Amino acid sequence: MSSITLIGTGNMARAIGTLAVVGGNTVEVMGRDQSKADDLAEALGGGATPGKWGAVPAGDIVITALLYDSVVPVVAEYGDALAGKVIVDISNPFNATFDGLAHSEETSIAQEVAKVAPAGASVVKAFNTIFRSVLEEGRPNVFIAGDSAQAKADVAAFVESLGLRPLDVGGLRMAHWLEGMGLVTMGLAANGVGHWNFALGVNEFPG
Amino acid sequence: MSSITLIGTGNMARAIGTLAVVGGNTVEVMGRDQSKADDLAEALGGGATPGKWGAVPAGDIVITALLYDSVVPVVAEYGDALAGKVIVDISNPFNATFDGLAHSEETSIAQEVAKVAPAGASVVKAFNTIFRSVLEEGRPNVFIAGDSAQAKADVAAFVESLGLRPLDVGGLRMAHWLEGMGLVTMGLAANGVGHWNFALGVNEFPG
Repeated sequence: MSSITLIGTGNMARAIGTLAVVGGNTVEVMGRDQSKADDLAEALGGGATPGKWGAVPAGDIVITALLYDSVVPVVAEYGDALAGKVIVDISNPFNATFDGLAHSEETSIAQEVAKVAPAGASVVKAFNTIFRSVLEEGRPNVFIAGDSAQAKADVAAFVESLGLRPLDVGGLRMAHWLEGMGLVTMGLAANGVGHWNFALGVNEFPG
Repeated sequence: MSSITLIGTGNMARAIGTLAVVGGNTVEVMGRDQSKADDLAEALGGGATPGKWGAVPAGDIVITALLYDSVVPVVAEYGDALAGKVIVDISNPFNATFDGLAHSEETSIAQEVAKVAPAGASVVKAFNTIFRSVLEEGRPNVFIAGDSAQAKADVAAFVESLGLRPLDVGGLRMAHWLEGMGLVTMGLAANGVGHWNFALGVNEFPG
Protein backbone atom coordinates (compact mmCIF):
# COMPACT_ATOMS: atom_id res chain seq x y z
CA MET A 1 0.00 0.00 0.00
CA SER A 2 1.08 3.58 -0.53
CA SER A 3 1.52 6.57 1.71
CA ILE A 4 0.07 9.68 0.11
CA THR A 5 -0.32 13.32 0.96
CA LEU A 6 -3.04 15.38 -0.65
CA ILE A 7 -2.22 19.06 -1.01
CA GLY A 8 -5.65 20.60 -1.45
CA THR A 9 -9.02 20.12 0.18
CA GLY A 10 -11.42 20.44 -2.73
CA ASN A 11 -13.58 17.99 -4.65
CA MET A 12 -10.74 16.10 -6.31
CA ALA A 13 -8.85 15.78 -3.03
CA ARG A 14 -11.98 14.35 -1.47
CA ALA A 15 -12.60 11.93 -4.37
CA ILE A 16 -9.03 10.62 -4.51
CA GLY A 17 -8.76 10.57 -0.73
CA THR A 18 -11.93 8.53 -0.39
CA LEU A 19 -10.68 5.91 -2.85
CA ALA A 20 -7.24 5.94 -1.23
CA VAL A 21 -8.67 5.18 2.21
CA VAL A 22 -10.85 2.39 0.84
CA GLY A 23 -7.77 1.01 -0.90
CA GLY A 24 -5.92 0.76 2.41
CA ASN A 25 -3.45 3.56 1.82
CA THR A 26 -2.11 5.94 4.44
CA VAL A 27 -3.53 9.40 3.73
CA GLU A 28 -2.48 12.86 4.87
CA VAL A 29 -4.33 16.05 3.94
CA MET A 30 -2.81 19.51 3.75
CA GLY A 31 -4.67 22.76 3.12
CA ARG A 32 -3.71 26.39 3.35
CA ASP A 33 -6.85 26.68 5.45
CA GLN A 34 -5.97 24.31 8.29
CA SER A 35 -9.58 23.86 9.35
CA LYS A 36 -10.45 22.54 5.90
CA ALA A 37 -7.58 20.03 6.08
CA ASP A 38 -8.76 18.96 9.52
CA ASP A 39 -12.33 18.57 8.29
CA LEU A 40 -11.40 16.59 5.18
CA ALA A 41 -9.09 14.25 7.13
CA GLU A 42 -11.90 13.58 9.57
CA ALA A 43 -14.43 13.08 6.78
CA LEU A 44 -12.14 10.62 4.99
CA GLY A 45 -11.69 8.53 8.12
CA GLY A 46 -9.58 5.39 7.91
CA GLY A 47 -6.80 6.97 9.92
CA ALA A 48 -6.41 9.93 7.54
CA THR A 49 -4.53 12.75 9.26
CA PRO A 50 -4.26 16.47 8.69
CA GLY A 51 -0.79 17.84 7.96
CA LYS A 52 0.59 21.32 8.38
CA TRP A 53 0.69 23.49 5.26
CA GLY A 54 4.24 23.83 3.95
CA ALA A 55 5.72 21.12 6.18
CA VAL A 56 7.43 18.01 4.86
CA PRO A 57 4.59 15.74 3.71
CA ALA A 58 4.27 12.39 5.43
CA GLY A 59 3.36 10.70 2.16
CA ASP A 60 5.88 9.40 -0.34
CA ILE A 61 3.43 10.38 -3.08
CA VAL A 62 2.24 13.98 -2.95
CA ILE A 63 -0.84 14.76 -5.00
CA THR A 64 -1.39 18.43 -5.76
CA ALA A 65 -5.18 18.51 -5.88
CA LEU A 66 -5.32 22.20 -6.75
CA LEU A 67 -6.68 24.43 -9.47
CA TYR A 68 -4.14 24.47 -12.29
CA ASP A 69 -2.86 27.97 -11.70
CA SER A 70 -1.98 27.18 -8.09
CA VAL A 71 0.03 24.03 -8.72
CA VAL A 72 3.38 25.53 -9.75
CA PRO A 73 3.31 28.32 -7.12
CA VAL A 74 2.46 25.85 -4.34
CA VAL A 75 5.19 23.41 -5.36
CA ALA A 76 7.63 26.33 -5.41
CA GLU A 77 6.36 27.46 -1.99
CA TYR A 78 6.89 23.98 -0.54
CA GLY A 79 10.37 23.94 -2.05
CA ASP A 80 12.78 21.56 -0.35
CA ALA A 81 9.95 20.11 1.72
CA LEU A 82 9.18 18.05 -1.39
CA ALA A 83 12.72 16.70 -1.83
CA GLY A 84 12.63 13.03 -2.75
CA LYS A 85 8.86 12.97 -3.20
CA VAL A 86 6.82 11.77 -6.13
CA ILE A 87 4.72 14.79 -7.05
CA VAL A 88 1.50 13.97 -8.91
CA ASP A 89 -0.07 16.78 -10.93
CA ILE A 90 -3.73 16.13 -11.78
CA SER A 91 -4.64 19.56 -13.14
CA ASN A 92 -6.29 20.69 -16.34
CA PRO A 93 -5.17 24.09 -17.61
CA PHE A 94 -8.13 24.72 -19.90
CA ASN A 95 -8.54 28.02 -21.70
CA ALA A 96 -11.78 29.97 -21.43
CA THR A 97 -13.36 28.23 -24.43
CA PHE A 98 -12.28 24.68 -23.50
CA ASP A 99 -10.61 24.07 -26.85
CA GLY A 100 -7.05 24.92 -25.95
CA LEU A 101 -4.68 25.04 -23.01
CA ALA A 102 -3.95 28.08 -20.89
CA HIS A 103 -0.29 27.88 -21.92
CA SER A 104 0.39 28.48 -25.58
CA GLU A 105 3.76 26.77 -25.56
CA GLU A 106 4.02 23.00 -25.94
CA THR A 107 4.34 22.43 -22.22
CA SER A 108 2.13 21.27 -19.38
CA ILE A 109 1.57 22.07 -15.74
CA ALA A 110 3.46 18.87 -14.93
CA GLN A 111 6.50 19.96 -16.93
CA GLU A 112 6.39 23.38 -15.29
CA VAL A 113 6.19 21.71 -11.88
CA ALA A 114 9.32 19.73 -12.72
CA LYS A 115 11.15 23.02 -13.31
CA VAL A 116 10.48 24.27 -9.77
CA ALA A 117 10.54 20.93 -7.91
CA PRO A 118 13.50 20.31 -5.58
CA ALA A 119 16.33 17.90 -6.27
CA GLY A 120 15.35 14.27 -6.04
CA ALA A 121 11.66 14.90 -6.57
CA SER A 122 9.95 13.25 -9.54
CA VAL A 123 6.86 14.53 -11.29
CA VAL A 124 4.08 12.38 -12.71
CA LYS A 125 0.96 13.53 -14.55
CA ALA A 126 -2.09 11.44 -13.72
CA PHE A 127 -5.86 11.50 -13.21
CA ASN A 128 -6.44 14.66 -15.27
CA THR A 129 -8.63 12.99 -17.90
CA ILE A 130 -11.16 11.79 -15.34
CA PHE A 131 -14.22 13.72 -14.23
CA ARG A 132 -14.62 13.73 -10.46
CA SER A 133 -18.03 12.07 -10.70
CA VAL A 134 -16.53 9.20 -12.68
CA LEU A 135 -13.75 8.80 -10.15
CA GLU A 136 -16.42 8.47 -7.49
CA GLU A 137 -18.67 6.06 -9.33
CA GLY A 138 -16.85 4.40 -12.21
CA ARG A 139 -13.72 2.42 -12.88
CA PRO A 140 -11.89 4.66 -15.35
CA ASN A 141 -8.43 4.10 -16.80
CA VAL A 142 -5.77 6.39 -15.32
CA PHE A 143 -3.24 7.68 -17.83
CA ILE A 144 0.16 8.53 -16.38
CA ALA A 145 3.22 10.26 -17.83
CA GLY A 146 6.60 10.91 -16.28
CA ASP A 147 10.34 10.68 -16.79
CA SER A 148 11.09 8.48 -13.77
CA ALA A 149 10.26 4.80 -14.20
CA GLN A 150 10.36 4.32 -10.42
CA ALA A 151 8.00 7.22 -9.77
CA LYS A 152 5.59 5.90 -12.40
CA ALA A 153 5.76 2.43 -10.84
CA ASP A 154 4.93 3.96 -7.45
CA VAL A 155 1.98 5.86 -8.88
CA ALA A 156 0.82 2.80 -10.81
CA ALA A 157 0.80 0.74 -7.61
CA PHE A 158 -1.26 3.45 -5.91
CA VAL A 159 -3.69 3.57 -8.85
CA GLU A 160 -4.08 -0.20 -8.70
CA SER A 161 -4.86 0.04 -4.97
CA LEU A 162 -7.84 2.19 -6.00
CA GLY A 163 -9.12 -0.60 -8.22
CA LEU A 164 -8.22 1.32 -11.34
CA ARG A 165 -5.98 0.51 -14.31
CA PRO A 166 -2.85 2.66 -14.68
CA LEU A 167 -1.71 3.23 -18.25
CA ASP A 168 1.77 4.61 -18.85
CA VAL A 169 1.83 6.83 -21.95
CA GLY A 170 5.53 7.72 -21.81
CA GLY A 171 7.76 10.56 -20.66
CA LEU A 172 6.75 13.75 -18.92
CA ARG A 173 6.60 15.56 -22.26
CA MET A 174 3.48 13.48 -22.96
CA ALA A 175 1.77 15.37 -20.12
CA HIS A 176 1.04 18.07 -22.67
CA TRP A 177 -0.97 15.59 -24.70
CA LEU A 178 -2.72 14.20 -21.63
CA GLU A 179 -3.82 17.75 -20.92
CA GLY A 180 -5.12 17.75 -24.49
CA MET A 181 -7.05 14.58 -23.71
CA GLY A 182 -8.65 16.52 -20.87
CA LEU A 183 -9.88 18.96 -23.51
CA VAL A 184 -11.13 16.11 -25.69
CA THR A 185 -13.02 14.71 -22.72
CA MET A 186 -14.75 18.06 -22.25
CA GLY A 187 -15.48 18.15 -25.98
CA LEU A 188 -16.99 14.69 -25.90
CA ALA A 189 -19.23 15.56 -22.96
CA ALA A 190 -20.54 18.56 -24.89
CA ASN A 191 -20.79 16.84 -28.27
CA GLY A 192 -20.42 13.16 -29.17
CA VAL A 193 -21.21 11.57 -25.82
CA GLY A 194 -23.60 14.13 -24.40
CA HIS A 195 -23.28 13.17 -20.75
CA TRP A 196 -20.56 13.05 -18.09
CA ASN A 197 -20.60 9.38 -17.06
CA PHE A 198 -17.64 8.30 -19.15
CA ALA A 199 -13.90 8.50 -19.45
CA LEU A 200 -11.41 8.09 -22.22
CA GLY A 201 -9.76 4.73 -21.91
CA VAL A 202 -8.27 1.85 -23.78
CA ASN A 203 -10.52 -0.53 -25.65
CA GLU A 204 -8.65 -3.75 -26.41
CA PHE A 205 -9.35 -6.09 -29.28
CA PRO A 206 -7.64 -9.42 -28.62
CA GLY A 207 -6.61 -10.97 -31.90
CA MET B 1 -25.14 4.85 -47.56
CA SER B 2 -22.36 7.20 -48.51
CA SER B 3 -20.40 7.89 -51.64
CA ILE B 4 -16.71 8.21 -50.88
CA THR B 5 -13.52 8.84 -52.76
CA LEU B 6 -10.21 7.70 -51.37
CA ILE B 7 -7.24 9.80 -52.43
CA GLY B 8 -4.34 7.47 -51.79
CA THR B 9 -3.68 3.81 -52.40
CA GLY B 10 -1.75 2.74 -49.29
CA ASN B 11 -2.59 0.63 -46.28
CA MET B 12 -5.10 3.02 -44.73
CA ALA B 13 -6.89 3.50 -48.07
CA ARG B 14 -7.15 -0.26 -48.35
CA ALA B 15 -8.39 -0.69 -44.78
CA ILE B 16 -11.02 2.04 -44.98
CA GLY B 17 -11.99 1.04 -48.49
CA THR B 18 -12.51 -2.57 -47.46
CA LEU B 19 -14.82 -1.57 -44.62
CA ALA B 20 -16.59 0.93 -46.85
CA VAL B 21 -17.40 -1.70 -49.47
CA VAL B 22 -18.64 -4.14 -46.83
CA GLY B 23 -20.78 -1.32 -45.44
CA GLY B 24 -22.49 -0.87 -48.78
CA ASN B 25 -20.95 2.45 -49.69
CA THR B 26 -19.98 3.59 -53.17
CA VAL B 27 -16.19 3.76 -53.34
CA GLU B 28 -13.85 5.50 -55.76
CA VAL B 29 -10.05 5.29 -55.54
CA MET B 30 -7.61 7.89 -56.83
CA GLY B 31 -3.84 7.59 -56.89
CA ARG B 32 -1.09 9.60 -58.51
CA ASP B 33 0.04 6.26 -59.86
CA GLN B 34 -3.02 5.28 -61.88
CA SER B 35 -2.10 1.61 -61.93
CA LYS B 36 -2.17 1.51 -58.13
CA ALA B 37 -5.62 3.10 -58.11
CA ASP B 38 -6.79 0.57 -60.69
CA ASP B 39 -5.37 -2.30 -58.65
CA LEU B 40 -6.84 -1.15 -55.35
CA ALA B 41 -10.29 -0.56 -56.86
CA GLU B 42 -10.21 -4.06 -58.30
CA ALA B 43 -8.99 -5.54 -55.02
CA LEU B 44 -11.74 -3.80 -53.05
CA GLY B 45 -14.45 -5.14 -55.35
CA GLY B 46 -18.05 -4.30 -54.58
CA GLY B 47 -18.26 -1.98 -57.55
CA ALA B 48 -15.32 0.17 -56.41
CA THR B 49 -14.00 2.23 -59.30
CA PRO B 50 -10.72 3.95 -60.05
CA GLY B 51 -10.85 7.69 -60.58
CA LYS B 52 -8.47 9.98 -62.39
CA TRP B 53 -5.93 11.83 -60.26
CA GLY B 54 -6.86 15.50 -59.93
CA ALA B 55 -10.35 15.14 -61.41
CA VAL B 56 -13.53 15.99 -59.55
CA PRO B 57 -14.07 13.09 -57.13
CA ALA B 58 -17.25 11.08 -57.55
CA GLY B 59 -17.66 10.78 -53.78
CA ASP B 60 -19.33 13.37 -51.61
CA ILE B 61 -16.84 12.45 -48.88
CA VAL B 62 -13.20 12.61 -49.94
CA ILE B 63 -10.75 10.84 -47.64
CA THR B 64 -7.14 11.88 -48.03
CA ALA B 65 -5.42 8.61 -47.12
CA LEU B 66 -1.93 10.05 -47.49
CA LEU B 67 1.19 10.53 -45.42
CA TYR B 68 0.76 13.69 -43.40
CA ASP B 69 3.17 15.85 -45.36
CA SER B 70 1.31 15.15 -48.60
CA VAL B 71 -2.18 16.04 -47.42
CA VAL B 72 -2.07 19.83 -47.69
CA PRO B 73 -0.15 19.88 -51.02
CA VAL B 74 -2.55 17.36 -52.57
CA VAL B 75 -5.66 19.25 -51.43
CA ALA B 76 -4.10 22.42 -52.86
CA GLU B 77 -3.30 20.57 -56.10
CA TYR B 78 -6.90 19.36 -56.42
CA GLY B 79 -8.10 22.90 -55.76
CA ASP B 80 -11.58 23.64 -57.08
CA ALA B 81 -12.09 19.95 -57.90
CA LEU B 82 -12.92 19.60 -54.18
CA ALA B 83 -15.50 22.40 -54.09
CA GLY B 84 -18.50 21.35 -52.03
CA LYS B 85 -16.85 18.16 -50.80
CA VAL B 86 -16.41 16.91 -47.27
CA ILE B 87 -12.66 16.41 -46.95
CA VAL B 88 -11.62 13.91 -44.28
CA ASP B 89 -8.05 14.17 -43.01
CA ILE B 90 -6.87 11.01 -41.25
CA SER B 91 -3.18 11.85 -40.91
CA ASN B 92 -0.79 11.83 -37.97
CA PRO B 93 1.99 14.40 -38.18
CA PHE B 94 4.30 12.77 -35.64
CA ASN B 95 7.76 14.14 -34.97
CA ALA B 96 10.79 11.88 -35.16
CA THR B 97 10.59 10.87 -31.50
CA PHE B 98 6.80 10.27 -31.44
CA ASP B 99 6.27 12.62 -28.49
CA GLY B 100 5.32 15.76 -30.37
CA LEU B 101 3.77 16.93 -33.62
CA ALA B 102 5.69 17.92 -36.71
CA HIS B 103 4.17 21.41 -36.48
CA SER B 104 5.19 23.41 -33.44
CA GLU B 105 2.25 25.79 -33.63
CA GLU B 106 -1.10 24.83 -32.12
CA THR B 107 -2.53 23.71 -35.42
CA SER B 108 -3.22 20.42 -37.18
CA ILE B 109 -3.06 19.02 -40.66
CA ALA B 110 -6.85 19.30 -40.77
CA GLN B 111 -6.76 23.00 -39.94
CA GLU B 112 -4.05 23.56 -42.54
CA VAL B 113 -6.17 21.68 -45.08
CA ALA B 114 -9.05 24.03 -44.33
CA LYS B 115 -6.83 26.97 -45.26
CA VAL B 116 -6.21 25.64 -48.78
CA ALA B 117 -9.56 23.93 -49.40
CA PRO B 118 -11.85 25.54 -51.99
CA ALA B 119 -15.04 27.42 -51.17
CA GLY B 120 -17.87 25.25 -50.00
CA ALA B 121 -15.62 22.39 -48.91
CA SER B 122 -15.71 21.29 -45.28
CA VAL B 123 -12.89 19.59 -43.42
CA VAL B 124 -13.30 16.86 -40.82
CA LYS B 125 -10.56 15.14 -38.83
CA ALA B 126 -11.27 11.46 -38.26
CA PHE B 127 -9.73 7.98 -37.95
CA ASN B 128 -6.26 9.25 -36.96
CA THR B 129 -6.25 7.62 -33.51
CA ILE B 130 -6.76 4.13 -34.94
CA PHE B 131 -4.01 1.73 -35.94
CA ARG B 132 -4.64 0.16 -39.32
CA SER B 133 -4.60 -3.33 -37.83
CA VAL B 134 -7.34 -2.35 -35.38
CA LEU B 135 -9.42 -0.88 -38.18
CA GLU B 136 -9.13 -4.21 -39.95
CA GLU B 137 -9.90 -6.42 -36.99
CA GLY B 138 -11.51 -4.43 -34.17
CA ARG B 139 -14.44 -2.15 -33.59
CA PRO B 140 -12.72 1.04 -32.43
CA ASN B 141 -14.38 4.36 -31.66
CA VAL B 142 -13.81 7.00 -34.33
CA PHE B 143 -13.23 10.49 -32.99
CA ILE B 144 -14.23 13.30 -35.33
CA ALA B 145 -13.70 17.06 -35.23
CA GLY B 146 -14.90 19.75 -37.59
CA ASP B 147 -16.57 23.13 -37.85
CA SER B 148 -19.47 22.04 -40.08
CA ALA B 149 -22.25 20.18 -38.30
CA GLN B 150 -23.53 18.88 -41.64
CA ALA B 151 -20.12 17.58 -42.67
CA LYS B 152 -19.70 15.86 -39.32
CA ALA B 153 -23.16 14.30 -39.66
CA ASP B 154 -22.19 13.00 -43.11
CA VAL B 155 -18.95 11.51 -41.77
CA ALA B 156 -20.74 10.08 -38.73
CA ALA B 157 -23.23 8.31 -41.01
CA PHE B 158 -20.34 6.87 -43.01
CA VAL B 159 -18.57 5.74 -39.84
CA GLU B 160 -21.74 4.04 -38.65
CA SER B 161 -22.01 2.23 -41.99
CA LEU B 162 -18.64 0.67 -41.11
CA GLY B 163 -20.09 -0.69 -37.88
CA LEU B 164 -18.09 1.81 -35.82
CA ARG B 165 -19.12 4.46 -33.31
CA PRO B 166 -18.48 8.06 -34.33
CA LEU B 167 -17.69 10.44 -31.48
CA ASP B 168 -17.83 14.18 -32.13
CA VAL B 169 -15.23 16.00 -30.02
CA GLY B 170 -16.04 19.52 -31.23
CA GLY B 171 -14.76 22.08 -33.70
CA LEU B 172 -11.89 21.73 -36.13
CA ARG B 173 -9.52 23.32 -33.62
CA MET B 174 -9.87 20.10 -31.62
CA ALA B 175 -8.09 18.30 -34.49
CA HIS B 176 -4.85 19.44 -32.87
CA TRP B 177 -5.75 17.47 -29.76
CA LEU B 178 -6.89 14.45 -31.76
CA GLU B 179 -3.45 14.47 -33.34
CA GLY B 180 -2.12 14.50 -29.78
CA MET B 181 -4.26 11.46 -29.03
CA GLY B 182 -2.49 9.79 -31.94
CA LEU B 183 0.75 10.41 -30.06
CA VAL B 184 -0.75 9.06 -26.85
CA THR B 185 -1.83 5.94 -28.72
CA MET B 186 1.75 5.41 -29.88
CA GLY B 187 2.97 6.01 -26.33
CA LEU B 188 0.53 3.49 -24.93
CA ALA B 189 1.62 0.84 -27.43
CA ALA B 190 5.24 1.35 -26.36
CA ASN B 191 4.54 1.65 -22.63
CA GLY B 192 1.36 1.00 -20.68
CA VAL B 193 -0.43 -1.32 -23.08
CA GLY B 194 2.52 -3.02 -24.71
CA HIS B 195 0.77 -4.26 -27.82
CA TRP B 196 -1.08 -2.80 -30.80
CA ASN B 197 -4.50 -4.44 -30.54
CA PHE B 198 -6.26 -1.53 -28.88
CA ALA B 199 -7.61 1.93 -29.50
CA LEU B 200 -8.44 4.89 -27.35
CA GLY B 201 -12.16 5.09 -26.89
CA VAL B 202 -14.93 6.02 -24.54
CA ASN B 203 -15.67 3.83 -21.54
CA GLU B 204 -19.14 4.61 -20.21
CA PHE B 205 -20.27 4.15 -16.64
CA PRO B 206 -24.07 4.32 -16.53
CA GLY B 207 -25.18 5.73 -13.19
